[in-house]
Amino acid sequence: MNVAELERYLHEHIPLSRAMGVAVAAATLDEVVLTAPFAPNINHRETVFGGSASALCILSAWALVHLRLRAAGVAARLVIQRNVMDYQRPIQGEFSARATIPDAAAWSRFERAFERKGRGRIDVAATLASGDEIAGRLAGTFVALR
Amino acid sequence: MNVAELERYLHEHIPLSRAMGVAVAAATLDEVVLTAPFAPNINHRETVFGGSASALCILSAWALVHLRLRAAGVAARLVIQRNVMDYQRPIQGEFSARATIPDAAAWSRFERAFERKGRGRIDVAATLASGDEIAGRLAGTFVALR
Repeated sequence: MNVAELERYLHEHIPLSRAMGVAVAAATLDEVVLTAPFAPNINHRETVFGGSASALCILSAWALVHLRLRAAGVAARLVIQRNVMDYQRPIQGEFSARATIPDAAAWSRFERAFERKGRGRIDVAATLASGDEIAGRLAGTFVALR
Repeated sequence: MNVAELERYLHEHIPLSRAMGVAVAAATLDEVVLTAPFAPNINHRETVFGGSASALCILSAWALVHLRLRAAGVAARLVIQRNVMDYQRPIQGEFSARATIPDAAAWSRFERAFERKGRGRIDVAATLASGDEIAGRLAGTFVALR
């Protein structure tokens, strides 16, 4: 699934991603980078609404796990179990979320658990940024179910 | 600010709330209850997208602090600092978020800190539900700044 395919998938299946104007900037097995424009995501203070910021981070994290499972030929139902979002500075413009798997060994354990028990859990990190400036961080936990 | 006024305020100032179809069901100094319809908030599994669920909880929590500060005649800039969201079950229909201030004494400390230092921090809880069934919980921390 390349950048254009992932973007189309998100817009088709998750209508809020379209309302937010989400675009896919990178979609590899190492990272997924999503961007969103300012206007549809502003709040009453004319900075980015926290709900939009965390939704973009959640989407990037979900998409990374989704792409990796697809690449591994694993058919799983993937659900978010928990997320912790820290907002470090207000954003006044376009913003991005970059998701990575912080612990490489954890991915192998996740896949093995899924194969053995039909259920695996994986932690994903996402960095919220505006331009080159870090604006927040998400730690998300996802569960894959057979 | 009554139910209709809060709803208009959200739709005018936070466009994502309009895209999500957010409606205000209750807006008192004890609780804010927001609802959202299923269709604009679905995900690829035809359950509610986690980003929509957490955004509704964040909005309800923010609105409750906003209403209480207004009622107290306090003019503050209110920003979210952190949130922890637990997703307990998938939702397949309309959903709601109900925000409350879990610790009454904490509100007084928050107001006093804001008066004294121009900065106060308050924890807010929100319960995500679908019908009568609890579907998740948010713990949010907000900072009020002069």
